[in-house]
Formats: sequence, structure tokens, C-alpha cells
Amino acid sequence: MPEPAIDVIDIDDPDDPRVDDFRDLNSVDRRPDLPALPGGRPGKGLVIAEGVLVAQRMIASRFTPHAFLGVDKRLAELDADLRTPSVSGVPFYRASAEVMAAVVGFHLNRGVLAVARRPPVRTVDEILANARSVAILEGVNDHENIGSIFRNAAGLGIDAVLFGAGCADPLYRRCVRVSMGHALLVPFARFDEWPRGLDALRAGGFRLISLTPDPAAMPLAQAVEATKVGFLVGAEGPGLSAHAMAATDVRARIPMSRGTDSLNVATAAAIAFYERARSGTMEA
Amino acid sequence: MPEPAIDVIDIDDPDDPRVDDFRDLNSVDRRPDLPALPGGRPGKGLVIAEGVLVAQRMIASRFTPHAFLGVDKRLAELDADLRTPSVSGVPFYRASAEVMAAVVGFHLNRGVLAVARRPPVRTVDEILANARSVAILEGVNDHENIGSIFRNAAGLGIDAVLFGAGCADPLYRRCVRVSMGHALLVPFARFDEWPRGLDALRAGGFRLISLTPDPAAMPLAQAVEATKVGFLVGAEGPGLSAHAMAATDVRARIPMSRGTDSLNVATAAAIAFYERARSGTMEA
Repeated sequence: MPEPAIDVIDIDDPDDPRVDDFRDLNSVDRRPDLPALPGGRPGKGLVIAEGVLVAQRMIASRFTPHAFLGVDKRLAELDADLRTPSVSGVPFYRASAEVMAAVVGFHLNRGVLAVARRPPVRTVDEILANARSVAILEGVNDHENIGSIFRNAAGLGIDAVLFGAGCADPLYRRCVRVSMGHALLVPFARFDEWPRGLDALRAGGFRLISLTPDPAAMPLAQAVEATKVGFLVGAEGPGLSAHAMAATDVRARIPMSRGTDSLNVATAAAIAFYERARSGTMEA
Repeated sequence: MPEPAIDVIDIDDPDDPRVDDFRDLNSVDRRPDLPALPGGRPGKGLVIAEGVLVAQRMIASRFTPHAFLGVDKRLAELDADLRTPSVSGVPFYRASAEVMAAVVGFHLNRGVLAVARRPPVRTVDEILANARSVAILEGVNDHENIGSIFRNAAGLGIDAVLFGAGCADPLYRRCVRVSMGHALLVPFARFDEWPRGLDALRAGGFRLISLTPDPAAMPLAQAVEATKVGFLVGAEGPGLSAHAMAATDVRARIPMSRGTDSLNVATAAAIAFYERARSGTMEA
């Protein structure tokens, strides 16, 4: 079988419409990775992967790229990945760093981008069918924190991330980048009703554990021993809402020194994920 | 006893030399918080605290502020703190947000700054006299990661941070900010010789634990049971150098999923700190 070819197209003019899906990445209202909201902002609904590693993970994900834009050096680094059947025939727009900067609106250190259309969203029920440990976020509206939570979930064996009210878009470029591409690989879904949607987890046998700095809560280490667990985390500062907290089975705390703030939300989540992974390790 | 007064001085001219210690905060070569290096760059050797919370922590630290610059609203918020004896007579330069922006070089959301001279550095021996658990960094040159490590150390009960070769300045403004001011409160020191300086810890009864993603290493949970521990972490990517690793007593790993990257260095450190705090909690 002949080796599949890569469709390399040189781009010399930053105004070339073929690279419109990579244009103005930092624009608040024109960036291509704004979600297409029904009745809302008319976003293009794309997802952007930055850099070789994240582009590779996008190729391996259900977010199949329909175009790449990058410098020649990155084309070479991605050579084997670009011959993957799922991206057969997908154009690689090759440009100089200067032309790329003019298209995206700033100098891009990582030298390569991939773009995909957003596939249909998954439902909470679909996610729960195959999950034993999930992270559940409420009010987490910082893209870097969401990205870190995906990275930590992937590294520490959490099966999925579920979004309650008030969370930012996990498919924004910065989030995908900070997640090291795991936002494209770790399954996620949004609750239609919050916090009522948590009932589906309880019905599915999940123990719902809310993380709180409250010294009266149970130590985390005593809370994770259940076949299926859902860890609820809220935004730094306000934390989980009272009605989300009331919908959980147990409140758990990370032992904290006096006179300090609570930990960063992604760090607190990582510690909960670790505690879950740890109990598995210690049994083995 | 009369309530101590606050020495408020209004600044209308951004070129006023009295606020020179707050000037050009983003300048690579003129920022006032560049360390004064013997024979090296002629930095002013100051430390800058940003925002009400970090300024409060600076006042509570051994880095006594010698001046403040802020808008009237923040002056009101800091009123009680500014009457602390240690900052008696210290000027609060009050300015509009516009004048402040012209002085520091950008718009500063947090609205207040405090500045201190760097006190004499502590030695590793001084630190070890009162510590039972320490973090030891090698090659961590990212200010946000160092700041996060200080915040996590404070929150999770680690007594001190020690710096081996190749680490960035923990007193840079961004680091102090990300640490929530704990870079000013958690004791730290630099090793004069690296990694030979680790001998002092071993002589002091510390168990030296290097964190590594190597699956052949001991699970972290089994490694922390010692009266005194030192956790060694290296930069993301390269990790600890071979000679630092060789100088430790045990190599410990956080259980990680296959096909993922190692965790962010501050997250990995937080998990190690948690494991240490956890063993204390579980005994209690």
C-alpha cells in the first residue's frame, strides 16, 4: 500500500480566505473558536489546537481536524501523524512565521495550529454509562483552571468531567492548550438542569463528594472509598453553592494549615483525584 | 494611647521621584524588584506586593514595607493594617488609577502596591533548625510554578522551601502574587553548593524523597513516613538531574495513567505535601 500523501498548500498572502478558520485568534468577538450558540452569538463553533503535542492529541481525538496551519519545521515534526487515515486529504497550510502571525493576530511560538468542527455534545447519561470516577465543576469560569483540571483528570485516572452552572467553555483555545490536549480526550458533558441533574449520578450509584475547606467536614481520605465517585468543586472564593453542596452525599476537606487560603481549584481537584488513585494503588 | 496616624501623601505627577520604587514594573532591565547581584546586574533589590491581601501579608512578614502606592479605595481597605507598629510612619502615596498606571507602566487592577527592601538571605542551616518538612526545587525557573509551590506549601503545612541550581527568583512580583504572599512568609534559602548541600539535610535526619514519574519508583504513600522529609522536585520536562536524584534516599512516584504527561510541577508538589499532611491527619 503506498504511503498516504500530505496535502501541503503554501500560503503567502495572510488574507487568503483558505486560512479564515485560523484568523484573529485573540479577537473577543470574531475568534473562530467561539461556540455557535442557538439564538446567541453566531460563533463559528470551531476548536483550535496549538503546538505539535496538542495537534497530535486532536488527531487522536473525536475532534477530527479539517485543516492545519503551520511553519515548515512543524510540518516535518508532524509528518507521521499527518499520514493517519482520519486526516487523510486534510490540507496543511504551510506559511512563514510572519504570515502566520498576520493571520492569527500575534506571534505564535508553537508554530502550528489544527482546527476542527465541534462534534455533537455528549449527554451526561452517555458519559455515566462508562465512568466510575468523575469531576463535577460549578462556577469554574477560568479557562486555565478548567484546562488544568482536564490535565489532572487524565493524569490521575478520572474518567470524565461534568459541568454544572457557571462554567467557562472547555473548548476555548487557552483551555485546550493548558490541558495539554486532554480537554479533547477526556469525555465531558454539561448538565441541563443544575443541580437537579446530579440525581442521575446518585441513581447510577455514584457517591457525590463535595470539596470544602470547612474544618467540620470529613477528611478526604475517608470519603473516597466507594465504587463510583463524583468530586464536586466550586470556584475559588465562593466555592460550591449551598444548593449544590446540599445535593451531595458527603462533604470532604483537604487538611489545611490555619491562616491560609483554600488551594487553587485545580490543585484541590488534583489532590482529590490523587486520593482516589491512591486507594487503587494501595490495594494493588 | 492615641491611634497611630497614617502618613498619606498625594501624588499627582507620575514623574514624582518619591514613587520611583514603583516605576516601570514590567521593564525587563529597570524594574525595581530585580535582585541586587554582587558583580552582576545592578538591581535595586526590592520586593513588590500587589493587592490588599498580599500587602497585608507583606506587613505581617519580615519584609517590612517602606512605602505604599495605591488608590483611595485601597487606602481605606488597608486602614487597620497601616496602623500596625511595624509600618508606623511609612508613607502611603495616594494616586488616581491613571497616575498609578503612568508610574508602573500598565493598568494595575489590584489598585495598591507595597514595596520592601530585601532583608539578608537566610542560610539553609537556619532554615533546617526549625523545619520538619521542606520542599527542595531544582531547575524550576517558572515564576508562576514557584509562586504556586509557596502557596501550596503554606496551605498544606510544609515548613520551608529550599532552592537548588537553576531556579528563578522567588521574590519577583509575579511569583509573590501567585503565591498569595506566602513567598514572603514561608521561609526559604538557597543551597551554596548543589547537590552537595543536601548532605546537611541527611545529617539533620531528613529523608530525601525525589518525585519522579518512573513507574519503577516507590508509591509516594509509602515514602513519606519519616520524622523529617525533604521533597525534591525538578522542572517539567527534564525533571530532576541525575546527580540530584542520586543524592536522595528514595525515589517516589505519583500513580499516573498511561499515555499522559507528568503533572505540572506545582501540582505534583502539592500532592506530595498533601500525602505528608494526610499521614498526620489520619493519625489524629
